[in-house]
Amino acid sequence: MAPEVTSSPSANLKLKTPKGTKDWVGQSLRLRDTIFETISDVFQCHGGVPLDTPVFELRDVLTGKYGADARLIYNLEDQGGEILSLRYDLAVPFARWLAMRSDVKQIKRYQIAKVYRRDQPAITRGRLREFYQCDFDIAGTYDPMIPEAEILRVVVEAFRELEMGITIKLNDRRILDGLFAVSGVPSDKIRTVSSAVDKLDKEPWEMVRREMVDEKGITADVADRIGQYVRRRGNMGDMLAYLATEDAFSNNADIQCGIKDLRLLMSYLEAMDALDTVSFDLSLARGLDYYTGLIYEVVINEPNQVGSIAAGGRYDNLVGMYGKQQVPCIGISFGIDRIFTILEQRQKMSDSANLKRQPDVYIIAAGGKDSDGFLLERMKAARELWDAGIQAEYSPKVKPTLQSQFNASKDVPIVVIMGQEEISQGQVRLKQMKSDVETKDRGILVAREGLVQGVKEMMVQP
Amino acid sequence: MAPEVTSSPSANLKLKTPKGTKDWVGQSLRLRDTIFETISDVFQCHGGVPLDTPVFELRDVLTGKYGADARLIYNLEDQGGEILSLRYDLAVPFARWLAMRSDVKQIKRYQIAKVYRRDQPAITRGRLREFYQCDFDIAGTYDPMIPEAEILRVVVEAFRELEMGITIKLNDRRILDGLFAVSGVPSDKIRTVSSAVDKLDKEPWEMVRREMVDEKGITADVADRIGQYVRRRGNMGDMLAYLATEDAFSNNADIQCGIKDLRLLMSYLEAMDALDTVSFDLSLARGLDYYTGLIYEVVINEPNQVGSIAAGGRYDNLVGMYGKQQVPCIGISFGIDRIFTILEQRQKMSDSANLKRQPDVYIIAAGGKDSDGFLLERMKAARELWDAGIQAEYSPKVKPTLQSQFNASKDVPIVVIMGQEEISQGQVRLKQMKSDVETKDRGILVAREGLVQGVKEMMVQP
Repeated sequence: MAPEVTSSPSANLKLKTPKGTKDWVGQSLRLRDTIFETISDVFQCHGGVPLDTPVFELRDVLTGKYGADARLIYNLEDQGGEILSLRYDLAVPFARWLAMRSDVKQIKRYQIAKVYRRDQPAITRGRLREFYQCDFDIAGTYDPMIPEAEILRVVVEAFRELEMGITIKLNDRRILDGLFAVSGVPSDKIRTVSSAVDKLDKEPWEMVRREMVDEKGITADVADRIGQYVRRRGNMGDMLAYLATEDAFSNNADIQCGIKDLRLLMSYLEAMDALDTVSFDLSLARGLDYYTGLIYEVVINEPNQVGSIAAGGRYDNLVGMYGKQQVPCIGISFGIDRIFTILEQRQKMSDSANLKRQPDVYIIAAGGKDSDGFLLERMKAARELWDAGIQAEYSPKVKPTLQSQFNASKDVPIVVIMGQEEISQGQVRLKQMKSDVETKDRGILVAREGLVQGVKEMMVQP
Repeated sequence: MAPEVTSSPSANLKLKTPKGTKDWVGQSLRLRDTIFETISDVFQCHGGVPLDTPVFELRDVLTGKYGADARLIYNLEDQGGEILSLRYDLAVPFARWLAMRSDVKQIKRYQIAKVYRRDQPAITRGRLREFYQCDFDIAGTYDPMIPEAEILRVVVEAFRELEMGITIKLNDRRILDGLFAVSGVPSDKIRTVSSAVDKLDKEPWEMVRREMVDEKGITADVADRIGQYVRRRGNMGDMLAYLATEDAFSNNADIQCGIKDLRLLMSYLEAMDALDTVSFDLSLARGLDYYTGLIYEVVINEPNQVGSIAAGGRYDNLVGMYGKQQVPCIGISFGIDRIFTILEQRQKMSDSANLKRQPDVYIIAAGGKDSDGFLLERMKAARELWDAGIQAEYSPKVKPTLQSQFNASKDVPIVVIMGQEEISQGQVRLKQMKSDVETKDRGILVAREGLVQGVKEMMVQP
């Protein structure tokens, strides 16, 4: 079941990870796990149920869910047996699970896992072929906008815990589609116009207008009417007042339905102290076809712009595609790689420099050439410290030199020194190493049996 | 980049996870993550550096490492570009990473991740095609047996934290090979005899003897000499004394070298208070060809026998196969699925029954038919509790019935009751629900602004 040491072509192999993938190691992996923990603590506080699905699915489960992007799916070789593909996102495995579990009518589920896309990688911009998604979804039938409010509240709490100032841009597919209809967009062109409008966060209106008129066959009149509407954004109160007073909208059922729901949402967000974080942005369209109601994108309030760091919306028809049960859903997906990039820059961390976390304590054997290195004594001391949950280390040599031990204990806050004199008197020497200046300080002597207590006291000192 | 709602073959699809895989959800996933956390806390206390590698590797990285088992590797389809396979274990990705990192000469690394084997699954016995490995390895050149002692100490600490009583069975490849040589086994038959002897924990000696004589072409004389040696086990002191006094071994360099190292290890284990956990078992052989020194297997001290729950050994030649640098290694792999099975049985948990963790608090709107449901009040209260890190829930309905709310709050320790009377007097009612008996207790009234404080006080009450 495991490696055999035989001659192999490995020796001439160019060693690397596959294109668009990377190894995570040391401090950067710790930071990534801290982000996961922070976010999942929030999910759990809101009753989130964790789900973990296999890395591959039956290929048919994925078929017909991704349109043209299906070419980016990684397939497994047919080695006999089932035909499999790697998961492309977490929404489809969740829908598959939900369709299998007819006993589950309402659930808040979250999943943090890697997904796979044979896309052109752009590693410097954080786009990889193997990358993390972090999804929280509320599935089931509820009274209107109650799950919407909780999802947005989860966003507010998660980024508060990550200490990132954010704005949630939101819109509603029904209002957006209504605006297009009122502007005179034929219904078969609504999605293509929508995807042009979605670029307004990156491109000026003139470019978007040109795309609609020159490439998508929208008349200049219609385009101008669209421009009049979708370039508006502001707080929910002002925007809802605008939508309510615009005569052109009063006969559009989609828009009126959206206004009614968003008023409800506004009152809920106020009760949840999340309203100030929200900007109602009529240009927000989101690329995905499957949204049916509220949509949102989270951007960071800092010049350090990396695009949206979380996004989602309501999608009521996906689970029903498996024909078992229709379950309306709303979800949010956190862009872990972008969040990681921002937090890593903030911490000015260097991966290679910080492979290892410094231990709390380093145990040094002092003594002349005739010293026996006190390895057993050092092991006993380490064992006692480990038992107290303290990360302790010692040289893995029987007779280490003093110099090698001082080098290894560089940046370690506390050293324990064991020499012949100390040992014969049943004592150890403890020394705090935090001071930047070289001192003549020889540390303090404590009784050997007081080692753990002494270290603990030193650890709480500033 | 995501699902399109189009007609698809999904509606007629038999929904399942791929053969040999499963979904993890709810309480069982929480238990699994608790096991991961417990074990990785121990790794970190010993200076372990976390590593996470891609789920697939260049196929050539895996080639020639697994002998006949290579047929169990999952290959990815050739869709243009690199030729890839799913990882089969964590040892080879670690060796690949180490070979790429010439700056790393010594490291303790750990990795907890899924691996993939196209094996015949036996789900009831916990054998899956997608399953977890949890590896801790110490790589680099150290003074003899110092890393060995720390690995065994890590095992002792991990299972102590998991509250599982265990025995570490250990042996040394050099001693075992020496015993076979002294018994008269030809050197080209040592590995095959070794794998027969390894079955002595499951089969009686007679069966193993018959296999050696009938199938492996070992003479009866030689088999009997082997049987005389390998059926011995006991504490390290007794076993080392036996090996040292047996005349037949005195001229075998392998055995003498092993004895010398194991004496050293014994003194180290004593210093680390880990000696009592160890049983020196001359029948332990381990299946893998690549071990070069100490080998060990961990078994649980309970009638509930599931075979070994952790295992490993020294392997000094694997990294060198990539031709970049020779790095001696020793490692331990925890059998997460078996550990999970044991702890799950102990907790008598049922996955489906415990999908969701009960919230700390449920907020109930009380009131007659004319009540407005107090949704905004319930949302405000929930928000305050969430801000205090308390998992609070309320009915996702505008006007929920009292009965539906009482049903939903079943087993929730504390309920907050908001009725017209309480609200108009600026109060809320708190009620502890832990008592099994139905009481007339109407709970206590607290001022609305003292809600969080009141709940906190109630949470610490027995």
